[in-house]
Amino acid sequence: MTTGAQALLKTLADAGIEVCFSNPGTSEMHFVAALDHEPRMRAVLTLFEGVASGAADGYARMSGKPAATLLHLGCGLGNALANLHNARRARVPLLNIVGDHATTHMRYDAQLQSDIETVARNVSPGFVRTSRSSAELCRDAVDAIAAARGLPHQVATLILPADVSWSEGAQPCATPAAAAPAGIDGEAVRGIAKAITSGARTALLLGGGALREAGLLAAARVAARHGVLLLAETFPTRLERGAGLPRVERLAYLAELVQVQLAGVQHLVLVDAKSPVSFFAYPGRPSDLLPEGCIVHTLCGPAQDAVQGLAALVDALGAGESAPALQGAQRPPAPRGRLTAAKVCKAVGHLLPERAILIDEAITSGLMLGVLTAGAPRHDLLTLTGGAIGQALPNAIGAAIACPDRPVLALVGDGAAMYTIQSLWTMAREQLDITAIVFNNASYSVLNVELDRVGAAAARGKARAQLDLDQPRLDFARLAQGMGVHGVRAETADDLIKALRYALETPGPHLIEAMVPESLGKAKRRLLPWLLRSLPRLPRSLQRTLKARIAP
Amino acid sequence: MTTGAQALLKTLADAGIEVCFSNPGTSEMHFVAALDHEPRMRAVLTLFEGVASGAADGYARMSGKPAATLLHLGCGLGNALANLHNARRARVPLLNIVGDHATTHMRYDAQLQSDIETVARNVSPGFVRTSRSSAELCRDAVDAIAAARGLPHQVATLILPADVSWSEGAQPCATPAAAAPAGIDGEAVRGIAKAITSGARTALLLGGGALREAGLLAAARVAARHGVLLLAETFPTRLERGAGLPRVERLAYLAELVQVQLAGVQHLVLVDAKSPVSFFAYPGRPSDLLPEGCIVHTLCGPAQDAVQGLAALVDALGAGESAPALQGAQRPPAPRGRLTAAKVCKAVGHLLPERAILIDEAITSGLMLGVLTAGAPRHDLLTLTGGAIGQALPNAIGAAIACPDRPVLALVGDGAAMYTIQSLWTMAREQLDITAIVFNNASYSVLNVELDRVGAAAARGKARAQLDLDQPRLDFARLAQGMGVHGVRAETADDLIKALRYALETPGPHLIEAMVPESLGKAKRRLLPWLLRSLPRLPRSLQRTLKARIAP
Repeated sequence: MTTGAQALLKTLADAGIEVCFSNPGTSEMHFVAALDHEPRMRAVLTLFEGVASGAADGYARMSGKPAATLLHLGCGLGNALANLHNARRARVPLLNIVGDHATTHMRYDAQLQSDIETVARNVSPGFVRTSRSSAELCRDAVDAIAAARGLPHQVATLILPADVSWSEGAQPCATPAAAAPAGIDGEAVRGIAKAITSGARTALLLGGGALREAGLLAAARVAARHGVLLLAETFPTRLERGAGLPRVERLAYLAELVQVQLAGVQHLVLVDAKSPVSFFAYPGRPSDLLPEGCIVHTLCGPAQDAVQGLAALVDALGAGESAPALQGAQRPPAPRGRLTAAKVCKAVGHLLPERAILIDEAITSGLMLGVLTAGAPRHDLLTLTGGAIGQALPNAIGAAIACPDRPVLALVGDGAAMYTIQSLWTMAREQLDITAIVFNNASYSVLNVELDRVGAAAARGKARAQLDLDQPRLDFARLAQGMGVHGVRAETADDLIKALRYALETPGPHLIEAMVPESLGKAKRRLLPWLLRSLPRLPRSLQRTLKARIAP
Repeated sequence: MTTGAQALLKTLADAGIEVCFSNPGTSEMHFVAALDHEPRMRAVLTLFEGVASGAADGYARMSGKPAATLLHLGCGLGNALANLHNARRARVPLLNIVGDHATTHMRYDAQLQSDIETVARNVSPGFVRTSRSSAELCRDAVDAIAAARGLPHQVATLILPADVSWSEGAQPCATPAAAAPAGIDGEAVRGIAKAITSGARTALLLGGGALREAGLLAAARVAARHGVLLLAETFPTRLERGAGLPRVERLAYLAELVQVQLAGVQHLVLVDAKSPVSFFAYPGRPSDLLPEGCIVHTLCGPAQDAVQGLAALVDALGAGESAPALQGAQRPPAPRGRLTAAKVCKAVGHLLPERAILIDEAITSGLMLGVLTAGAPRHDLLTLTGGAIGQALPNAIGAAIACPDRPVLALVGDGAAMYTIQSLWTMAREQLDITAIVFNNASYSVLNVELDRVGAAAARGKARAQLDLDQPRLDFARLAQGMGVHGVRAETADDLIKALRYALETPGPHLIEAMVPESLGKAKRRLLPWLLRSLPRLPRSLQRTLKARIAP
């Protein structure tokens, strides 16, 4: 006889779902027991659900297909929510399996009971379903998988009551192949081609699927032929970059800089990207960052194939034979002396191995990362798509499991690292080839900037103390050791280079704690709001210089 | 001019809300800046929102009044959700302030935007409101505070858009005193008195407010006069116990044991407690744990005053002069030799200081805690009210802040500790007198029991591996050191006694990692389901003996 859980696991494996990032409780015990019957399913235990969800996100970004999470009722889902939000914004396919009380138990409102569906809707607006019986379970699962991997991809949530899991009589179901993407609108392509050839200043804003090699090459052909500006969204899900690939400039996080980047653009073409808006709102400043009078065109959205859209545009423009400008190979020299955040980025640029997966949640400390790794060997860059911090370490787990033959580097701020620090244990348990670099500047540095930017600059002791992480200063090397990960502290650039070399040469996970001063000292922090305000009025050449120092 | 945030903080402080457990982001920067203008508000920074919510829960349990949390949009609320669930089940007053994007920014669906209200409903079904303007903000806050501290207490959620926070023209408002509790139903009291005096076997099931000294004494007078059985709910919010107080038996976590505890009870009187149901459902077993034919009476519910209800019952029964049976002073001797979980509990019983606050999230390792601390000096016991693990360490922070002159001991399983391990940093930062004892048995031990109980006993390697926390074994002493807390590992009972003495004598936070074997070895684990099944058929004296070994 087949239990619901056994049939569900077979259904998942048949659909190509091969990894489950789990943190189970009692209501998931039959699912756990059924793992023994499905050799195709790898179960990766995490100590906190936010690690499981962030790992599933990273896995999907690199494999292109969904992993499952296994979560324990509403509380487990709550713990997973922040990284599921990042996954939703990354538009990756992901399948949550959330255990619930047995259907017969629900009316008693036992301690752990809560309204799971309402929580799930926050991250799974497109698909939340509670399976009602073992007989229906696998059909429900098929619908959930189809929802997750249809276009646009999404986070689907299947709620699995304990008795639906343990009862017999379930039948595995086959999941149909995902539907083809919606076609490209020829009319839109012609309109965009016309705008581009009109001579007006035009930019392509690339996002989602446009940021992989094929899309980048097509966009670069258009740029080579017609001089359009190539931009990428601020927080890409997965950006292929480095030597031999076209280089695109990412829109900055700071709205003031975006306005400089977009200045004079008359036509903005969205390629699986959103029209640019400010990350946060600021008193007296616009949220919409489009230059006045700029006309927005949509080449394709998330339900379409961005590469197909760009190919159509290349055709329409006769740019097929144009040679795209490619980034040359170029590495910064090894940094020396006193350690700073920029020197850490320099060391990464100096040593980044071939085919690395680079995950950037370094917030202010990573400001120079883009510039300093631009000519490094070709790599994938994963970023904080939804702004919910605590993404990099879990993402690294999923990326390493999706691509076991590729080195993974996660760069993360001290504040961000602490949200999902439990990730380190799973890295050790699975012996993943991950090097985590934590920038220890003992501060929520970005908030010190933001406190000034929102106009609350007079803040004194008690307010500023809310942004400081000293007293006591965290010791990440020790935290790593406490979870079985090789952890070292780097106080100088030479320490860092040595530690990074060792980490990249030695299999298994490593954590390097880079002791850096706050990226923006007090003086710079005061200067920044003024500088940002003044930026659009500065001469264009100075704007460019400054931009290169502050843009990603 | 007064900003919304400034007026809000004054409104909170005027209402007696004096502590804010925070983890802010950009949208909360004006609230943070306003802290400088309200000297009555203490802001306690946490590195993870689940620490903030668990601390607010612990604070409310010990102070009887709400603290505020300060959370960053839907993701911050998600991270806080598990411990808010515990707070909801604890029925404590608590006020979430969740920052949101500016109202003018919402239509742009920027990265961090999500449906906050839908998440909030999971833990705040009674009060969720998004404030729409600075002019309305303080009235909204007053409604939220009134909802939180009205009876039954609840978790109220006020969503604060950034522009409502930063705009001027707000006016602080005064919060009216909380309404008096609903009166006691005289008819119900007479019916219960009649049942008690009928000679039928009757039990009082005490919960909520009935578990403090006044309620316990009244209940014990009834018991002394009429021989009724005194029981407490399984997971009390706050139970006063120890030498000099009446002793009540808590209902067990294991349904099989509850059935033994309730065997033969013909009338069950609920005093601010729920009729007993199984924590989880198990195949082929009932969820409702009432004995057949047992009549349930409700003396009072959470909207009433349990002490008043019990006083009315004492009056109706003429039990006012009866001498309640009180627990004598009695401590176990110091344990020696090889360390086990029971010996850790023995050490706690041996050394528990006067007026301690004892927090129990030790799950299987704490099995003997109740028995071994029963005669210790009077103390408060806080437990895992909602079953969402990760509660003890944050609760300890809140309890220590509410009661700075009382020692706090948090006993926590290794698995549970990892969900909110970031708590240690806040303990160090605030230099709180907390001793955390982590039982390191390298296992989700309770799940090993549950895997067998749900009938999934055949589970082999891959399934069992989901419950094991070795490979690598966590090093909690090092984790504590990494967050600035004095941490030591105890390998023997003598180590433990020495470490515990030192921790209790030395101000500031301490973590003691107790290296214990899995509480239930393989053989015992196999035996347990059989034993539980057989229990009701064993002779009553043997049942009692066994119960004393397995009940809390």
